[in-house]
Amino acid sequence: MKVKSDSLSFSTGGFNDMKDLTGDVSQKLSDQGLKNGIVTLFVLGSTGGLTTIEYESGLVKDFSEFMEKVIPSSVSYHHDARWGDGNGFSHVRASLVGPSLTVPFSNGTLNLGTWQQIVFVDFDNRSRSRTILLQFLGE
Amino acid sequence: MKVKSDSLSFSTGGFNDMKDLTGDVSQKLSDQGLKNGIVTLFVLGSTGGLTTIEYESGLVKDFSEFMEKVIPSSVSYHHDARWGDGNGFSHVRASLVGPSLTVPFSNGTLNLGTWQQIVFVDFDNRSRSRTILLQFLGE
Amino acid sequence: MKVKSDSLSFSTGGFNDMKDLTGDVSQKLSDQGLKNGIVTLFVLGSTGGLTTIEYESGLVKDFSEFMEKVIPSSVSYHHDARWGDGNGFSHVRASLVGPSLTVPFSNGTLNLGTWQQIVFVDFDNRSRSRTILLQFLGE
Repeated sequence: MKVKSDSLSFSTGGFNDMKDLTGDVSQKLSDQGLKNGIVTLFVLGSTGGLTTIEYESGLVKDFSEFMEKVIPSSVSYHHDARWGDGNGFSHVRASLVGPSLTVPFSNGTLNLGTWQQIVFVDFDNRSRSRTILLQFLGE
Repeated sequence: MKVKSDSLSFSTGGFNDMKDLTGDVSQKLSDQGLKNGIVTLFVLGSTGGLTTIEYESGLVKDFSEFMEKVIPSSVSYHHDARWGDGNGFSHVRASLVGPSLTVPFSNGTLNLGTWQQIVFVDFDNRSRSRTILLQFLGE
Repeated sequence: MKVKSDSLSFSTGGFNDMKDLTGDVSQKLSDQGLKNGIVTLFVLGSTGGLTTIEYESGLVKDFSEFMEKVIPSSVSYHHDARWGDGNGFSHVRASLVGPSLTVPFSNGTLNLGTWQQIVFVDFDNRSRSRTILLQFLGE
């Protein structure tokens, strides 16, 4: 078994901007040449999260509206009072969704449902350059 | 170290139907014969989630009522407007809880607390046949 | 590739008490002598969770207030009616956040953002002694 380290870099718009990473992660898996194992995706940073979703514009909006409802951007957070960057809501959303996602692969293919995509959600309150680490373990 | 791929299949009732998978995952670990490592469970599909809970009927109900409160099934979602399958709430719940769970094992036994069970929650709005992948990495 | 099992033990105060584990996990990684791979952290127990956050007192309070808002400790849970330990809210919070976190490491260093710390949150309604398992896989 081997460890292969890779990463994806891209820019995001913040405010629940959701990026479908499925194609890029599949490509990296092909590049690494592993057949069976797992890949751990990890967000470097504390205002983004990883999960899976059926990536279509309706659900992208539904997920964003859910976040705005339960962790509103319009109220004041202790983080903002201390640090003044106004993104307390971004941090709470990110900690809730989590920075890590582990996906199995078999025969060189990511194991995902037909309508299931791997997504990164940028919860920050501004545009960002983002790096997602991909740690492949397999053979 | 080895990779061993396995899976569990079962039917579910939807509407937050929660299944205790602990016994089945333990059995698969025994079948695979690994002693130390991790197992990644992964839901194929975008309307189910994996977590742990003290699996007793009170908490099963509490978890379901929490989901209904924060992501109600009774309101309208953009997903439903576009696709008409009426399960927008199921998708948002699934993305929140997450499709993946990684559990360590030692000496051939899953490392879990005394009152902690591995559960799958079916958030869909109908009965389903479900498959959970189990990717074991260990020795 | 090797599997190395380790753990962290500490006491917590309950009621969303949040502990920064980053330094201790880094130290354990050094002790184990692995360079590249992943570490899976896992809570033994069903009233605690693991995630990452920018660990500063404002966000610690924000995260706690969010939990109290969406899963209040002041209302009655079916779990409490059955078992009388009064910590139904603790269990629901723990199942939502999740018991497991997987973090990659490279060149002997945990891969984390500059302002990103690994934290354990104790959701229980009393002080506890806690054990977090660390399963390292790497080379």
